[in-house]
Amino acid sequence: MGERIVYLDHAATTYVKPEVFESMKPYFSEHFGNASSIYSIGRDSKKAVEEAREKVAKAIGAQSREIFFTGSGSEADNWALKCIADANKKKGNHIITSAIEHPAILGTCKFLEDKGFEVTYLPVDSEGIISLEQLKEAIKDSTILISIMFANNEIGTIQPIQEIGEIAREKGILFHTDAVQAVGNIPIDVEKMNIDLLSLSGHKFYGPKGIGALYIRKGVKISSFIHGGQQERGKRASTENVPAIVGLAKAIEMATENIDAYNKKLVNLREKTIEGIMAKVPYVRLNGHSSSRLPGNVNISFQFIEGESLLLMLDMKGVYGSSGSACSSGSLDPSHVLMAIGLSHEIAHGSLRLTFGDENTEEDVDYLLEVIPTIVSKLRDMSPLYEVVKNKK
Amino acid sequence: MGERIVYLDHAATTYVKPEVFESMKPYFSEHFGNASSIYSIGRDSKKAVEEAREKVAKAIGAQSREIFFTGSGSEADNWALKCIADANKKKGNHIITSAIEHPAILGTCKFLEDKGFEVTYLPVDSEGIISLEQLKEAIKDSTILISIMFANNEIGTIQPIQEIGEIAREKGILFHTDAVQAVGNIPIDVEKMNIDLLSLSGHKFYGPKGIGALYIRKGVKISSFIHGGQQERGKRASTENVPAIVGLAKAIEMATENIDAYNKKLVNLREKTIEGIMAKVPYVRLNGHSSSRLPGNVNISFQFIEGESLLLMLDMKGVYGSSGSACSSGSLDPSHVLMAIGLSHEIAHGSLRLTFGDENTEEDVDYLLEVIPTIVSKLRDMSPLYEVVKNKK
Repeated sequence: MGERIVYLDHAATTYVKPEVFESMKPYFSEHFGNASSIYSIGRDSKKAVEEAREKVAKAIGAQSREIFFTGSGSEADNWALKCIADANKKKGNHIITSAIEHPAILGTCKFLEDKGFEVTYLPVDSEGIISLEQLKEAIKDSTILISIMFANNEIGTIQPIQEIGEIAREKGILFHTDAVQAVGNIPIDVEKMNIDLLSLSGHKFYGPKGIGALYIRKGVKISSFIHGGQQERGKRASTENVPAIVGLAKAIEMATENIDAYNKKLVNLREKTIEGIMAKVPYVRLNGHSSSRLPGNVNISFQFIEGESLLLMLDMKGVYGSSGSACSSGSLDPSHVLMAIGLSHEIAHGSLRLTFGDENTEEDVDYLLEVIPTIVSKLRDMSPLYEVVKNKK
Repeated sequence: MGERIVYLDHAATTYVKPEVFESMKPYFSEHFGNASSIYSIGRDSKKAVEEAREKVAKAIGAQSREIFFTGSGSEADNWALKCIADANKKKGNHIITSAIEHPAILGTCKFLEDKGFEVTYLPVDSEGIISLEQLKEAIKDSTILISIMFANNEIGTIQPIQEIGEIAREKGILFHTDAVQAVGNIPIDVEKMNIDLLSLSGHKFYGPKGIGALYIRKGVKISSFIHGGQQERGKRASTENVPAIVGLAKAIEMATENIDAYNKKLVNLREKTIEGIMAKVPYVRLNGHSSSRLPGNVNISFQFIEGESLLLMLDMKGVYGSSGSACSSGSLDPSHVLMAIGLSHEIAHGSLRLTFGDENTEEDVDYLLEVIPTIVSKLRDMSPLYEVVKNKK
């Protein structure tokens, strides 16, 4: 086809940057020793792991010994919720979260409810933000954990994390945040933001897949999720995945060093896209917050069409977007996030998520603004609903 | 130093073979799409994952849909035990395992005991084999799971898996085996061996770290361990780790194709080493079974010396062995496996594990048989205990 390829699904996953891949390479076949062994090859691996831990800690304002590597962001989320619940069950059985969390949080909360825990799902406003008043009101004597995502994976809305942290701190309740979408995109400081636990995932910021981390503030009581060997100071068993750990660290270091310029670049592409679509296509709605939003996130509902058809036609033009999150694909239910911000089934089904990244350019946006209006027109021309609306005009 | 390097810790971890690394490479930065996305880049990843699943299934005689990828062998073990226990808790609360399991099984059993499950730890004989009679006697109406490792990571003893499977099948009890040390080293057929669940790990047979799999026989009721997205047919959430999955499959395919020759090669190196040490060094003891043993495993106790000192001196000669399993390093307790086969504390502490692999040669063994007797002599010369023995003669 020879056409332009425009990858706009960085929130689903990113490619591994060449520098990241290069950093990982020696640890597959050359320095492959088991980091828990005592001989020299093992010591090389151990050193690499500890240097990586320092880099990850530095990127979020934590101390090195507060970082624990996991096999994914989902594992970090499962660990945080299940094992804070387990370790603190004598203090209480109540957890507060939001209605728009990632499935790794919502699925884990459902599991905990089955085990006798009580979960409050805070609603969000039409832009996807929780109410701090409602959060305060939801707190009970039995509340042991507040888990609110840093930024939403579908609509990009950023929560008032520091304020949530202050409320949690004031009440003596632990605060976990699923920061999988935020890390590498917006500056994070666990100290300043009063965060006690934070989940992150390598493949969302040009690091490898299959590696994540859980930040656990020193002194926080948590049990193990994966039992076995004494890796990760006895907290998370499994042979250290050295190449991936090294790659995660390189990626987070690169992302953090460059975060302001990256942020600015993405906001520019995002705003140009939003403004362009709004100007060129009627019957559209921007989902999520207008400013408290991930720099690279665009989520727009197109009335009278199906997001999936739009996606497939964009695919044929070399544009790779998404209609919801990749994690809930395979499901025909409308996005729980879009429902939570008050969209109707029909509007939610006509939603498109475009998430910008490092390699995108203004020319990509120009191309996008050329193909989207045409595709939307075509699809609407086939829509009986649109026919009715047009005739009414 | 310019000396020979002899890596003899393949049971701890293996290097990634060049062919395996090559198979993974395109999936880091080129075909990096999210396997759960619906656009074309995602479809490439999905296809790669499904082809990998078929290869893994084929290697152990399973069906493709019975293979579920995990982040490690430890995760597979945790998943199998915790979630079979959870899904079957109405049927009973009793689990049978052995005293010499890997920490990932023993730690999980301890966790389950804390949750109200009852665990029977079958003893083993002096060569490390469980008694089938004792297994039968241990079975109760409340038994829901038998979990016996395929082959021991420290002493290499292979259990009578098919017979255990028959007993389990006869009694209608699920049978899980931690086959992390066995896969890629000895032929496995889950059908023939009546295995219902099996854990494996990529980095034990020249695949990457951070990837494992759990075989779950079709129809077996198990709950999820990592909740969240709909990956792995809704059974294991986390974005698919495509490069590692592809690498695991390539490695298991290569290992399986070549298993007889590999087996023969390792047995030859093993026997030559055992015979050589036995002939050259007095006061030694071979731990584990003489024939029902992993092809590459040598585990020998040297009286009057510390395994750790032996290891460090071997390290200086370029020989990388281990004194126990890497997973329990950092602990000063003697190996639970060596205690279970009846060794005293002192003898257990003087143990050396050497595990052969692909790149080892007969020359490595010659070198080994040259350095080990000298090092042992030196260490014994410094041992007051040995002094007493010598003087008695």
